[in-house]
Amino acid sequence: MLSKISFEMQDKPLIFVTNDDGITAPGLRALTDVVRPLGKVVVIAPDKPQSGTSHAVTMRQPLRLNRIRQEPGFEEYSCNGTPVDCVKLAYKVVLGRHPDLLVSGINHGSNSSINIIYSGTMAAVFEGAMAGVPSIGFSLVRVEMNADFSAASTYARRIIRTVISRKLPDGVCLNVNIPPLPVSEIKGIRICRQAGGTWLEDFDIRKDPKGRDYFWLKGVFARIGDGEDTDEYALEHHYVSIVPVNFDFTDYPAIEELKRWDFSS
Amino acid sequence: MLSKISFEMQDKPLIFVTNDDGITAPGLRALTDVVRPLGKVVVIAPDKPQSGTSHAVTMRQPLRLNRIRQEPGFEEYSCNGTPVDCVKLAYKVVLGRHPDLLVSGINHGSNSSINIIYSGTMAAVFEGAMAGVPSIGFSLVRVEMNADFSAASTYARRIIRTVISRKLPDGVCLNVNIPPLPVSEIKGIRICRQAGGTWLEDFDIRKDPKGRDYFWLKGVFARIGDGEDTDEYALEHHYVSIVPVNFDFTDYPAIEELKRWDFSS
Repeated sequence: MLSKISFEMQDKPLIFVTNDDGITAPGLRALTDVVRPLGKVVVIAPDKPQSGTSHAVTMRQPLRLNRIRQEPGFEEYSCNGTPVDCVKLAYKVVLGRHPDLLVSGINHGSNSSINIIYSGTMAAVFEGAMAGVPSIGFSLVRVEMNADFSAASTYARRIIRTVISRKLPDGVCLNVNIPPLPVSEIKGIRICRQAGGTWLEDFDIRKDPKGRDYFWLKGVFARIGDGEDTDEYALEHHYVSIVPVNFDFTDYPAIEELKRWDFSS
Repeated sequence: MLSKISFEMQDKPLIFVTNDDGITAPGLRALTDVVRPLGKVVVIAPDKPQSGTSHAVTMRQPLRLNRIRQEPGFEEYSCNGTPVDCVKLAYKVVLGRHPDLLVSGINHGSNSSINIIYSGTMAAVFEGAMAGVPSIGFSLVRVEMNADFSAASTYARRIIRTVISRKLPDGVCLNVNIPPLPVSEIKGIRICRQAGGTWLEDFDIRKDPKGRDYFWLKGVFARIGDGEDTDEYALEHHYVSIVPVNFDFTDYPAIEELKRWDFSS
């Protein structure tokens, strides 16, 4: 089934698209429509919702690919794995090389603040950046499946064009969040840092038909801190937020602090 | 079944233990043995291996807890979820509060360099740090189930004692890796940054009995760069590596660069 990608390369960039809401999500359709005029496009997306799977990679079971569409300049596959699995399969099985651009989303729901840590959409973006591929994740701050993606698409187009024409710094990828507003009410783009935040969570404790407890996670997000330079602040004030992120998790100031500690006892 | 934890608090710290190799892993036994003399201990660990699940959280199905042991000062549970699920259940269902210390591991295999991104063991540590809990992940650079954890235990004990007696900087947690050597051959502890690295991966492409392709990930880790201040360098030179890490993924230098870009076209 899977020959390496058959496109002639010519001058058009090879653009890879994935998400974590799955192959049927309207946000994926919207993002695919944005990039198709810009290059040759391959989509590999999970065959079911994979929100909250973060950077999980499938190692204990085999992966499957199902080719859904093949047209000039466009191929689309579903995969039984995670978003990160989709990226790895793109590199090694479907494309046979790294794409020129990786875009992920448009996510149904915010990936601002600490939500980036749980996000499969943004994990795919990190996986792109780790291979040196210019990579951008897009999220609309609205979880509904029938949300209006028109403003998000407008801004995704602008940002993708800019990234194609300029070079992202080494190891840096972008976390873009779009407020749930018509394009006329969005004030522009803000470059931001990741806001502090937390999930105020609890578990529903329920009983199954045999009387045994089971637990279901529920919660609401709460911002921590009030910096005007954060993604949360930008979104609340009707701006699109772009947070440049990287995958070096080292806390450099803490290195000096810990070097003074005595670990010998 | 699940009353809130019944320990009297007195002066002993409440220590939470988890891992990603699962409840039966010898590395979890080793870490539990290290902390039991230091405080009151609750273990919640996955009921099956969850390596490579990163920060995945279970939202689409209910979670279960199975109490395995309950002794004065010690309780142990298995859970059908991920390491991050185990931490959330600890806070909200089993402990009813945040523990005084969270330790994760001892992982069977390295979590140095970029392996931290895929690691369920280290995701549990991030989840601890996000709640302000002093949190440490331990990994032995040997994947075998029958590996010798004695040197790793010796260093885990020293590091845990030091963290209990001092205060980790806000938002900082520790990624500790131990080389697979007898304690007499380990030269000491180095405070490090996260090394660059990549997985040289490929997929085995196989055919199922019906002749359909399936894909199985395989690969080897390769270090990138040769800084003497990295965790990879320390481990190769027979030191225990400690990388202080945080969960703000913002690339601050890139903010200034991107502010100069024109996104309007």
